[in-house]
Amino acid sequence: MLVIGIPYDATSSYRPGSRFAPRTVREAAANIEFYSLRAGLDLEAYRVADLGDIVLPVRPQEAVKRIEAVVAEVLGRYPGKLVALIGGEHSITLGSFSAVARVEEEPCLLVADAHFDLRDEYMEEKYSHASVMRRIAEAYGSERLFYIGVRAFAGEEVEYAREKHIEYVTSHSVRLLGVREVVARAARWIRRVGCKTLYVSVDMDGYDPAYAPGVANPEPEGLEPWMLLDILFKVVAESGARLRVVDVVEVSPPYDYSGITSILAAKTLLELFAAYQVQKSGARGG
Amino acid sequence: MLVIGIPYDATSSYRPGSRFAPRTVREAAANIEFYSLRAGLDLEAYRVADLGDIVLPVRPQEAVKRIEAVVAEVLGRYPGKLVALIGGEHSITLGSFSAVARVEEEPCLLVADAHFDLRDEYMEEKYSHASVMRRIAEAYGSERLFYIGVRAFAGEEVEYAREKHIEYVTSHSVRLLGVREVVARAARWIRRVGCKTLYVSVDMDGYDPAYAPGVANPEPEGLEPWMLLDILFKVVAESGARLRVVDVVEVSPPYDYSGITSILAAKTLLELFAAYQVQKSGARGG
Amino acid sequence: MLVIGIPYDATSSYRPGSRFAPRTVREAAANIEFYSLRAGLDLEAYRVADLGDIVLPVRPQEAVKRIEAVVAEVLGRYPGKLVALIGGEHSITLGSFSAVARVEEEPCLLVADAHFDLRDEYMEEKYSHASVMRRIAEAYGSERLFYIGVRAFAGEEVEYAREKHIEYVTSHSVRLLGVREVVARAARWIRRVGCKTLYVSVDMDGYDPAYAPGVANPEPEGLEPWMLLDILFKVVAESGARLRVVDVVEVSPPYDYSGITSILAAKTLLELFAAYQVQKSGARGG
Amino acid sequence: MLVIGIPYDATSSYRPGSRFAPRTVREAAANIEFYSLRAGLDLEAYRVADLGDIVLPVRPQEAVKRIEAVVAEVLGRYPGKLVALIGGEHSITLGSFSAVARVEEEPCLLVADAHFDLRDEYMEEKYSHASVMRRIAEAYGSERLFYIGVRAFAGEEVEYAREKHIEYVTSHSVRLLGVREVVARAARWIRRVGCKTLYVSVDMDGYDPAYAPGVANPEPEGLEPWMLLDILFKVVAESGARLRVVDVVEVSPPYDYSGITSILAAKTLLELFAAYQVQKSGARGG
Amino acid sequence: MLVIGIPYDATSSYRPGSRFAPRTVREAAANIEFYSLRAGLDLEAYRVADLGDIVLPVRPQEAVKRIEAVVAEVLGRYPGKLVALIGGEHSITLGSFSAVARVEEEPCLLVADAHFDLRDEYMEEKYSHASVMRRIAEAYGSERLFYIGVRAFAGEEVEYAREKHIEYVTSHSVRLLGVREVVARAARWIRRVGCKTLYVSVDMDGYDPAYAPGVANPEPEGLEPWMLLDILFKVVAESGARLRVVDVVEVSPPYDYSGITSILAAKTLLELFAAYQVQKSGARGG
Amino acid sequence: MLVIGIPYDATSSYRPGSRFAPRTVREAAANIEFYSLRAGLDLEAYRVADLGDIVLPVRPQEAVKRIEAVVAEVLGRYPGKLVALIGGEHSITLGSFSAVARVEEEPCLLVADAHFDLRDEYMEEKYSHASVMRRIAEAYGSERLFYIGVRAFAGEEVEYAREKHIEYVTSHSVRLLGVREVVARAARWIRRVGCKTLYVSVDMDGYDPAYAPGVANPEPEGLEPWMLLDILFKVVAESGARLRVVDVVEVSPPYDYSGITSILAAKTLLELFAAYQVQKSGARGG
Ligand SMILES: [Mn+2]
Ligand SMILES: [Mn+2]
Ligand SMILES: [Mn+2]
Ligand SMILES: [Mn+2]
Ligand SMILES: [Mn+2]
Ligand SMILES: [Mn+2]
Ligand SMILES: [Mn+2]
Ligand SMILES: [Mn+2]
Ligand SMILES: [Mn+2]
Ligand SMILES: [Mn+2]
Ligand SMILES: [Mn+2]
Ligand SMILES: [Mn+2]
Repeated sequence: MLVIGIPYDATSSYRPGSRFAPRTVREAAANIEFYSLRAGLDLEAYRVADLGDIVLPVRPQEAVKRIEAVVAEVLGRYPGKLVALIGGEHSITLGSFSAVARVEEEPCLLVADAHFDLRDEYMEEKYSHASVMRRIAEAYGSERLFYIGVRAFAGEEVEYAREKHIEYVTSHSVRLLGVREVVARAARWIRRVGCKTLYVSVDMDGYDPAYAPGVANPEPEGLEPWMLLDILFKVVAESGARLRVVDVVEVSPPYDYSGITSILAAKTLLELFAAYQVQKSGARGG
Repeated sequence: MLVIGIPYDATSSYRPGSRFAPRTVREAAANIEFYSLRAGLDLEAYRVADLGDIVLPVRPQEAVKRIEAVVAEVLGRYPGKLVALIGGEHSITLGSFSAVARVEEEPCLLVADAHFDLRDEYMEEKYSHASVMRRIAEAYGSERLFYIGVRAFAGEEVEYAREKHIEYVTSHSVRLLGVREVVARAARWIRRVGCKTLYVSVDMDGYDPAYAPGVANPEPEGLEPWMLLDILFKVVAESGARLRVVDVVEVSPPYDYSGITSILAAKTLLELFAAYQVQKSGARGG
Repeated sequence: MLVIGIPYDATSSYRPGSRFAPRTVREAAANIEFYSLRAGLDLEAYRVADLGDIVLPVRPQEAVKRIEAVVAEVLGRYPGKLVALIGGEHSITLGSFSAVARVEEEPCLLVADAHFDLRDEYMEEKYSHASVMRRIAEAYGSERLFYIGVRAFAGEEVEYAREKHIEYVTSHSVRLLGVREVVARAARWIRRVGCKTLYVSVDMDGYDPAYAPGVANPEPEGLEPWMLLDILFKVVAESGARLRVVDVVEVSPPYDYSGITSILAAKTLLELFAAYQVQKSGARGG
Repeated sequence: MLVIGIPYDATSSYRPGSRFAPRTVREAAANIEFYSLRAGLDLEAYRVADLGDIVLPVRPQEAVKRIEAVVAEVLGRYPGKLVALIGGEHSITLGSFSAVARVEEEPCLLVADAHFDLRDEYMEEKYSHASVMRRIAEAYGSERLFYIGVRAFAGEEVEYAREKHIEYVTSHSVRLLGVREVVARAARWIRRVGCKTLYVSVDMDGYDPAYAPGVANPEPEGLEPWMLLDILFKVVAESGARLRVVDVVEVSPPYDYSGITSILAAKTLLELFAAYQVQKSGARGG
Repeated sequence: MLVIGIPYDATSSYRPGSRFAPRTVREAAANIEFYSLRAGLDLEAYRVADLGDIVLPVRPQEAVKRIEAVVAEVLGRYPGKLVALIGGEHSITLGSFSAVARVEEEPCLLVADAHFDLRDEYMEEKYSHASVMRRIAEAYGSERLFYIGVRAFAGEEVEYAREKHIEYVTSHSVRLLGVREVVARAARWIRRVGCKTLYVSVDMDGYDPAYAPGVANPEPEGLEPWMLLDILFKVVAESGARLRVVDVVEVSPPYDYSGITSILAAKTLLELFAAYQVQKSGARGG
Repeated sequence: MLVIGIPYDATSSYRPGSRFAPRTVREAAANIEFYSLRAGLDLEAYRVADLGDIVLPVRPQEAVKRIEAVVAEVLGRYPGKLVALIGGEHSITLGSFSAVARVEEEPCLLVADAHFDLRDEYMEEKYSHASVMRRIAEAYGSERLFYIGVRAFAGEEVEYAREKHIEYVTSHSVRLLGVREVVARAARWIRRVGCKTLYVSVDMDGYDPAYAPGVANPEPEGLEPWMLLDILFKVVAESGARLRVVDVVEVSPPYDYSGITSILAAKTLLELFAAYQVQKSGARGG
């Protein structure tokens, strides 16, 4: 796994500070065990390389372009590796998904988030965290998006999602349907769209604020970690679309007093890495 | 919805600071979405007016009287509106419930709380947060109370509750019975007592401390937000008793480091506002 | 119940500060109700004596010896009493379990923890919190251990546990199996090993970090309090092995911003005290 | 020295929490050295007895009466001892000064404070921290007051102070005049009024907020600790009026993140205790 | 005095969050006394109007333009009033100084800061807080700048300052020279440049971090508040150049745990308002 | 300059956490300017190499030995370089000073500290932070010690210091004597003892807690940064004894909420590095 930090939070509208997350998530990763119970694998045995942080300008559109360039370069150079990005705010995903779209075939984006991030613009900005999925939908097709855990909408977003038939499972629905059914829906989406490459983007506010208090926009009634991790692990491990990039975004360390949000972000990357190994080996773990 | 802040915490026995909650809960409300998934309504479309804060004396009994006077005045002036109070500690509910009792017919009080607040007196004070429901029971009849989420009792309170046949569902029972059954019990209570007006008071310590760490008296093993909000929404939306006043109390911002308690309090008011709209329109949302 | 504080954290590898927990857990205990819903008992009626804190040297092995000496002395002097220890880090349990083994017959150790603590040594130290159960297994037999809630392993620990047939239920398994089945497995273990004396050690990181953020090593996907407390209560209340010592360890107050970890630790001791009363009286409570 | 805690903060108008100061100031005292460089004395050699905390009602006037009764009782029982009070808010000084006035002859009050606390009433309350010196002036004569470090005034207070010829040295004046001159002015005041008994009350906001950030009402441009302690030490050590009671008030632990305000409060008590020993022995220290 | 909030911090390079300062500084102002000892004036008697916050885009250059437009509009509409701006980061001063330069004659800028903010660009941005004075110097002449308290330089800045003969007094020099001499130098600068309008910009990091810990870039060895306030008060009160705009910038509330930085910022505005009144009345206060 | 982190805090008696200081001090160093006003030098031009952290065992005596071995190795390998150590607690200085004594001639130790650290043992430990200077005095001669800023003594320490004629200037004396005189006394000590190599050890509690709140044992009435830095700079720059090692110890990041203690520690290292350059070049800077 190749790790890249993207310390960018210039468009954060509520609680800034995700610029510090690349450091705190790495530190958390250094203090937790690398054994995945879901995979039955000790990930200590697998190589993780840290490529450092991307240096970025303040201006949103230029930042996005730089991210795209760097990630595309890395993807091109290491075709067999999983790339893990540590945000920064969600706006970075436009850059990195664009890089995947440039380098790989039929990319799809599985998003865990409390929000749609589908506004046309926000605070006069078209490249902010609140519009990132709108830009992706416009550029690569709205059918390439699948949301898990959404629950806080602006009217404009609900309308757009409806109109474009974007697929999503709210956090309430996850509780009603159960892990298995959500996994099945994601699997059908992958088949229907014909995804060959999978990008998993985890906005940490997809989790409930009790588990991830240190985020830019905490929204009640989110997912419990075991639930979301079970879903993501199974979707990846059992999917035909090859996992290529994962990101964790929107951790805001100045608001993460006990540090548990950074730890959960590190754990999320690890379980995705484990799922990747299982997918690669073609065999399910323990 | 008419919002009134009641920054009063003079009788707080453990962790003071709920005087600051009117400000932090309003700020939280300004930073979350107004879409209610339970109602399928975008509440941005409905009017919310902020009447500001009530200026209060230190002395408990006089504070209660002032609250009663102000709330009664507001209820009288705006007969068709839902009134939302942001505490302050729980002692304020004696004032506001008294106002409802003065202005409306057959008022009943649905309380979410970890505690009974049924002590005869506490720290030599009869008008403190720990005795508020005792005063209400004495003045308006103990049958008018229904508790959800209680789990921390003084011996004296258990005895009083038993003797007066006060109805309650502990947080343990909520988990055992499920949302539907708790809603059914509350509905039976409303019918049996003949409630025509409903007051919903949410002591934020009814939630588990993981979800609401910034309260005056955190008590383990509380309710998860989706559970309590489901119950409250359904009781209100399906009830014949008209929702007139809601309050959220006992948020203590100095102990709410990541701000998630204030955000959950704001969300609680929004879902109750949504339930009110559904009740009013006579139709259930999505 | 006899309470002893053990303010020792010299071997903490990540976030020190559990030295302060004896004070904060006591303070929390002074501010919560003593009524146990599980037992249907008001514990205010039972005597709790506080014996103060043990003064300890820095060096791990000597600290362990001192703890053993003091706890053995107390156990010998008060044969009919439950002893409750407030850590400090987990390394203290080697001292106190050794004391039990010296004074009582057929002692067994029920551990709630995210970790095995079964490393041969850690940071060049054989008496640290990360090796405490290895030392206990070596000295008293690995069959005397039963784990609940484990989920973060080093490879070396998994191997040792497998080789020694150590029994454990991961937090994932607790969710799958349910409270009843876990209790049944623990009961079978007690019978099979022939335990006559029970020691319950609760590393607070057994709980999920949402509920216990202020611990030395937070690990995601832990147990919810109601779950673990249900299990511990039932195992104790229905067990033939006499509960003699309980401990709560690894609370790190400098990281427990809202204080909810100390409160949950106090609650844990109270429910174990209630279970002890039920066990003693031979009758199940409410 | 006899220590009494007075955990009362019901009238706090800005940042409550001084109720917790008796505990944090004691804890700080347990972790600093007892050697006074000013006196050249190791205070470890002198006896300090802790009489515990006064249990208090919420209502201000009744709280004041209770404090008066308890302090008077202690003063009567231990005529040769220095009494040190740990607040709580400044309103407690009305009770304790009244006790001194009841038991001792010609009492005078030396106050370190950023504020006059001379309002006729505040938030409809005559017994709050903001009116405490007004009540004392009315009951015992305004000439008995001498302020050091004042700098934040309401118009009404300036007028009252002028009219009643109350003596004060602002923090700006302390910097201009120097320690020696301020001490000389206080000494002249003691002689002129004919004080026989001295009460020193230190509102911790007299210090600059850099040194005492954890107070209820931080006010910039305050005194540096060495300055105020030099003044207080010299006034006491060289004065003919016998030091009988000292208090430190207005520490608000929830706002004292690094704990340095509680430590400074403990240090203030220690230096006053050292000054008392020097006064008693009739000889100046090192 | 007209108060405008400018919640902008998109270019913050180290610790963001000054977007929240308009709210916290206002709240602080509501909780301190309005009496100025320097002026001998109770400012409660003078009118303060709050015009609210400016809504701003993310992009730096556009934000600057918007600020210029709004401030110019306000200056034009209220020619006789002092305008007080609450930042936000220092980059806002480019907008507001440009507005002054557009509306008033011969504007000069007195800056309190630890830094020169004279970089040509920073993190690829020409309109960031680190380049604000470079832009002002280029547009309006470097002789219009006078710095107090500077002490942290990049090589490029020292060179530029030297080359352009920009006047400054380091914090070390302030201690050596004393208040009187610094005031005299500033007065000579005003006369030499022929300033008719004065803008005072206070980057809160000009103060020492002990007094202003909650800033974006704390730099040791800064000024004590009494020193800087004495200097600013005297320069304004005795100056021929009319004070027209003041700003306080770079307060970062998420890092201002005890709130003392916001309080000091509020105090700074008040003393400048008092100086303005003295300047206007042509008479020196107490 | 060669930087080495020594994350050791096992013997901390009050507030642990200095193990994290190597990371936070480095991070602070990365965010402040490298220009030294005292030297008139831009230190960006000089090479700084980071050698990483020393991995250490828990046991104090063994930790000390490891530190000695590593530092001696580095000193031997880089004879012309200044070595800067970031603690960790003060006990580390025994190891590093021993290394200097092994490698260099006539080493002397200039200590800034609030405490003597001269206890024979503390908490049954002879190698703790509270005994470090006693061990050094015993092994290398008490005349090799010179203290600046001491003010908190145990009786035993005062006696030892007196008996051994150890030289010290209390923080009170520094204020009385002024920078020049203290520098002169240190210079005389260097000549009298015949020091050829200088080690400067800065326990951050030598500074006042207002400037360095995040330390293990805050003690009021300490030094202001400009004072101590002036003294250290001048002693080094003008001294004949060659500066070889500097350390900053006792920063406790969990208590350093606003981060200003780590920043001051970084600044302290920079000014010592600047003094070293001046000493080396034989010329005084600006
Ligand atoms: Mn998002
Ligand atoms: Mn989101
Ligand atoms: Mn309540
Ligand atoms: Mn409650
Ligand atoms: Mn453990
Ligand atoms: Mn553990
Ligand atoms: Mn006062
Ligand atoms: Mn005051
Ligand atoms: Mn600036
Ligand atoms: Mn600056
Ligand atoms: Mn030291
Ligand atoms: Mn020290």
